[in-house]
Amino acid sequence: MSDSGWLDTLQWDEAGLLPAIAQDAETGDVLMVAWMNRDALAATAERGEAVYWSRSRGRFWHKGEESGNTQTVREIRIDCDADVILLKVDQRGGIACHTGRRSCFFRRLHDGHWETVDAVVRDPGEIYRD
Amino acid sequence: MSDSGWLDTLQWDEAGLLPAIAQDAETGDVLMVAWMNRDALAATAERGEAVYWSRSRGRFWHKGEESGNTQTVREIRIDCDADVILLKVDQRGGIACHTGRRSCFFRRLHDGHWETVDAVVRDPGEIYRD
Repeated sequence: MSDSGWLDTLQWDEAGLLPAIAQDAETGDVLMVAWMNRDALAATAERGEAVYWSRSRGRFWHKGEESGNTQTVREIRIDCDADVILLKVDQRGGIACHTGRRSCFFRRLHDGHWETVDAVVRDPGEIYRD
Repeated sequence: MSDSGWLDTLQWDEAGLLPAIAQDAETGDVLMVAWMNRDALAATAERGEAVYWSRSRGRFWHKGEESGNTQTVREIRIDCDADVILLKVDQRGGIACHTGRRSCFFRRLHDGHWETVDAVVRDPGEIYRD
């Protein structure tokens, strides 16, 4: 990257991270939220596919690297405080969630409990084969 | 709240907070991201309007308390890890952002810089009159 000044605009937290929302560019569905550091966002912009920072694994996470369900990035936005990233993506395979669902937000509050309202599209055992 | 077990499902962070995304229930636009603690989420569910926890002010923030631009909550969702909240809302006044724009995500990455792509709907000076 010859000029990375745009990365300095972001208000990275103490750990150098920010939440990134992936939104389906077609349907508008919010698919998932993960974390990015500076290098993950730079890589996302450069390759045009979502690359996150996995806090649990402590490494870069090219979304879909295992499942094949990559996210082609159509647009990268930031909010007014420059501390949240919004990606508009085409979700390959139509599955963003490790549970095999389209979106990670498949539970809805109903009468004081969490109700699962979205179906599993594909069995996770078929998606992750190692 | 007679039964608040649903609040225990959430994986509150060390500060007792979680990010909450407000999404326009009609258009699907992501409007803003703010923070909630347990009591803010309980209040949101109870009154049917978004109540956040303001980290900068250290107090509850009933969205729209100054501007009148409240958010009527149609649906509350959580993600697979139960550490992000998603609200589907009707945005009163059509303005979620303190800059007077519909959404806080009005900047888009274009050719290595952040480009403002959404117009100001109403002058913030008219919205906040104190």
